Amino acid sequence: MADYIWGRYPVLEALRSKTRRVHRVLVAQGPRDPALTQVLDAARRVGVPVETSSRRHLDDLSKLGNHQGVMAVTAPRSYADVDEILARAEQHGEPPLVLVLDAIQDVQNLGSLIRTAEAVGAHGVIIPERRAAGLTATVDKTSAGAVEFLPVAQVTNLTRALDDLKKRGIWVFGLEATAETRYDKASLTGPIALVVGNEAKGISRLAREHCDVLISIPMRGHVGSLNAAIAGSLALFEIWRQRGFDLPSGEEG
Amino acid sequence: MADYIWGRYPVLEALRSKTRRVHRVLVAQGPRDPALTQVLDAARRVGVPVETSSRRHLDDLSKLGNHQGVMAVTAPRSYADVDEILARAEQHGEPPLVLVLDAIQDVQNLGSLIRTAEAVGAHGVIIPERRAAGLTATVDKTSAGAVEFLPVAQVTNLTRALDDLKKRGIWVFGLEATAETRYDKASLTGPIALVVGNEAKGISRLAREHCDVLISIPMRGHVGSLNAAIAGSLALFEIWRQRGFDLPSGEEG
Repeated sequence: MADYIWGRYPVLEALRSKTRRVHRVLVAQGPRDPALTQVLDAARRVGVPVETSSRRHLDDLSKLGNHQGVMAVTAPRSYADVDEILARAEQHGEPPLVLVLDAIQDVQNLGSLIRTAEAVGAHGVIIPERRAAGLTATVDKTSAGAVEFLPVAQVTNLTRALDDLKKRGIWVFGLEATAETRYDKASLTGPIALVVGNEAKGISRLAREHCDVLISIPMRGHVGSLNAAIAGSLALFEIWRQRGFDLPSGEEG
Repeated sequence: MADYIWGRYPVLEALRSKTRRVHRVLVAQGPRDPALTQVLDAARRVGVPVETSSRRHLDDLSKLGNHQGVMAVTAPRSYADVDEILARAEQHGEPPLVLVLDAIQDVQNLGSLIRTAEAVGAHGVIIPERRAAGLTATVDKTSAGAVEFLPVAQVTNLTRALDDLKKRGIWVFGLEATAETRYDKASLTGPIALVVGNEAKGISRLAREHCDVLISIPMRGHVGSLNAAIAGSLALFEIWRQRGFDLPSGEEG
């Protein structure tokens, strides 16, 4: 079984990634602009064969996705495990920052959250096996390729995973619109797992009961909640802000 | 011409809204759960007729949207003008906060941005007439009904609109990934228009030239940008944070 990634930027990121194996690149017949040429150059540099294909074939493979004339045929995405995520934190000498998605259904939200988590230097994402969006080609694309750089673990039992994290000294913060503690008033500098709930229902009762602290994003309008990806991103940035917007060691601010 | 709104929450918000006229509510045949009953009760309270319809008819009208068994038939959405937005700020005795969307293409991003803008108490949104997503039923839904409460102005010439805002004493801040000034280092307490660019291309050259200050959201990962709705939302919350997360006068924190 192969997996497909489409769109110039996601294909470029897949070629640059060390964790994702690209078998072939398919490019549509027709004129090639500089952005497309850059992708094909990157493929040649890493020794990945490039094949020309009809635009209709790309339309079919991507199910009419916005492939921009280029696709990568890759090994199916493999999930990481939680140990791998925590090992990354240790390697970087940083307190763990793990994003836990309770039951995000929308692949665009999943992709956006992975993109933000990667941007703030989270060490990984945990998602449940059931009743939630998984890593599809659309997520590759909506994450703008961030999924190539961030381990995503899929667990059968989310609350057990939260308990495991707590046993390892990680504080579990749940995001809930009605929580009394405002997100910027909580202390978010230690080892943290941030739990973001479902788009419509919020955090589930079971997951909520396994949180150490519930935090909320303030709102002053008429509508009672924010988009789940936006609420989660605001909390992720608050965590990074409280860590002084630090950059990986060796890099300058 | 009529416009359609679907989904329980958007229909409920439309019924509660003072700016949107709902002609009729269509409800699918079949069992009604408490959430649906609440919507129908709201319709009766404001004197809007409720008609039963086949589920297939709702599927057709919503183009297979997730209508959840209920739709509102409304007067077509009318756009506000910029004066109306600024008058709102004055009525509330607040420095104007206007969100300007350079060329947001994706209706989900447009809806999410309107939802966040409403949540932080922005006074309105300005979008261009061409090459950008407009207010469709999908935006009603992805904004979770926020579009009912926030005036959205559509302008033919965005840069002229920015110049107009500047003449009225409003500072124009542009969000750009490569800008030197970090968003939390800029002073964002005065009258502000925040310009958010296109998903792929960022802010356009012309719009950028009409900004007073360019600000960026920091990132520490491999991917070069955030989702446009998330970047815009982070900046909107930073503006509100600098205003002390104040609530509308008369309401408690």
